[in-house]
Amino acid sequence: MTQHDPYPSRRDNRPAVLERREPVLHAGADAAGPLSRDQLERFERDGFLVVENVLTEGEVAALIDELELLRASFEGREDPVAIAEPESGELRSVFMVHQINQAYRRLAHHPNIMDVARQILADEVYIHQSRINLKPGFKGKEFYWHSDFETWHVEDGMPAMRAVSATLPLTENTHYNGPLMLVPGSHRRFVSCIGETPEDNYKRSLRKQETGTPDNETLKALVDAGGIEAPLVQPGSMLLFDCNTMHGSASNITPFPRSNVFFVYNAVSNQVTSPFGGRRPRPEFVATRETMSPLDPRSR
Amino acid sequence: MTQHDPYPSRRDNRPAVLERREPVLHAGADAAGPLSRDQLERFERDGFLVVENVLTEGEVAALIDELELLRASFEGREDPVAIAEPESGELRSVFMVHQINQAYRRLAHHPNIMDVARQILADEVYIHQSRINLKPGFKGKEFYWHSDFETWHVEDGMPAMRAVSATLPLTENTHYNGPLMLVPGSHRRFVSCIGETPEDNYKRSLRKQETGTPDNETLKALVDAGGIEAPLVQPGSMLLFDCNTMHGSASNITPFPRSNVFFVYNAVSNQVTSPFGGRRPRPEFVATRETMSPLDPRSR
Repeated sequence: MTQHDPYPSRRDNRPAVLERREPVLHAGADAAGPLSRDQLERFERDGFLVVENVLTEGEVAALIDELELLRASFEGREDPVAIAEPESGELRSVFMVHQINQAYRRLAHHPNIMDVARQILADEVYIHQSRINLKPGFKGKEFYWHSDFETWHVEDGMPAMRAVSATLPLTENTHYNGPLMLVPGSHRRFVSCIGETPEDNYKRSLRKQETGTPDNETLKALVDAGGIEAPLVQPGSMLLFDCNTMHGSASNITPFPRSNVFFVYNAVSNQVTSPFGGRRPRPEFVATRETMSPLDPRSR
Repeated sequence: MTQHDPYPSRRDNRPAVLERREPVLHAGADAAGPLSRDQLERFERDGFLVVENVLTEGEVAALIDELELLRASFEGREDPVAIAEPESGELRSVFMVHQINQAYRRLAHHPNIMDVARQILADEVYIHQSRINLKPGFKGKEFYWHSDFETWHVEDGMPAMRAVSATLPLTENTHYNGPLMLVPGSHRRFVSCIGETPEDNYKRSLRKQETGTPDNETLKALVDAGGIEAPLVQPGSMLLFDCNTMHGSASNITPFPRSNVFFVYNAVSNQVTSPFGGRRPRPEFVATRETMSPLDPRSR
């Protein structure tokens, strides 16, 4: 039996743009939680929000120390959770950090982060994916424009737009070292992408995004409508963005690495099902199917 | 007989940093010409300078029209002066534009450009290389850090640091569409690069710079000392930079192309000789050896 798919993508050789079916704020702008009404309204309008003073300097320093331990632990061995840069071989991402490291596990439960996700999604939440992105200096590759939801829907089976991402920089972001760029307002449309998903696409797409990217014409229309913003979020602050906000980043040829922590909070009512693209699901470390029960605030 | 080489590069597997032998302002900061003493001093200090009000809006519009004619003229045929993007095949550069197009020929003789080069170099000048760079939107590739002089010395036989580049944007530059980044102060040192020059390197290096690039440690030291600047030069203005200023640009994934005109003015007393790298010279359209007589102001 064919699953009904409200957001078809990669099925046709013509792109399409569909209206978003779910709200952005699942309990509106009056929802109780860490964010003010004004912050919630900006998130709803733009599809992203910078929140300051989320972590103290000491908390950031401790996370950087843990990251160095993690990096050292992967040296000289292959591990599926550790993804390398295509050319240099340097560590690019570490997945499921909230499951393999106690400090990052506690970070995922931090009230300034997790409670914001609950406020926006109006539900208990679990971590669909977590990772540390390490964009090395000199040879850090670009990441082409994409909506995360498009991938999570097609490849992971996430039914609806009821997830939010939190990214917390561990290094200074400048205009020069490949900061995240976002298209304000792009979260209100679903861009149905052309082309098919190759089998085991994640092995390539975690290094270089090629499928699930918008066609030039649609991207240009989104940017003409909303522009491009690259908020220079600093360590201690957090960039929140909706699961469907179009984003990407240019290459980083500066000597300065760009590292950040990335948590995807999904509503428990939006647990993943069979991938809508019909392929077998991506592996557990990229998109969990085994640990979809709500995060417990007692783990803080 | 071996040529004496004051700036050896690509001869060793260890990098080296040498002091610059020539001045930056060849007749000092009192030289007569379009630039003020203050502008000359900033150029001397940083190795680059933004000069505003070089062209009128009408002049820029006319150049853009000519560029579209040029672009159309290359469609569907191969021409060595027209370089394509490695992946998309889109036009990336047109070389020797001042020889193949009358409007760009006159631009090279424009008093606001050519006379600035004469003021800095304290000599009559000729065009060592000219081109239009068209960094397409969506898929514009990065250009890694390099000193132009390093290439011109090793591959073209330019003896000394007595050349200056003028770049004039034809499109808006933003932080997002891969603007030129420069390292202030880097022009005072010569970074001797590691590795050898492959035969016919220009065929690759015009698309993607790989040889003649600084090692990570030296680049980091230059950036630690001088920082990185990406001046957002707008159409009508000009970015001047010394032949030895370290520069590069990140990829451009935005829908916005980044096009500019690029002229290299060399002092006639600094005409090229045999390439110091010992290979055969690059072709005429990349680095002239046939038209090294001074530009004549009557061609304006």
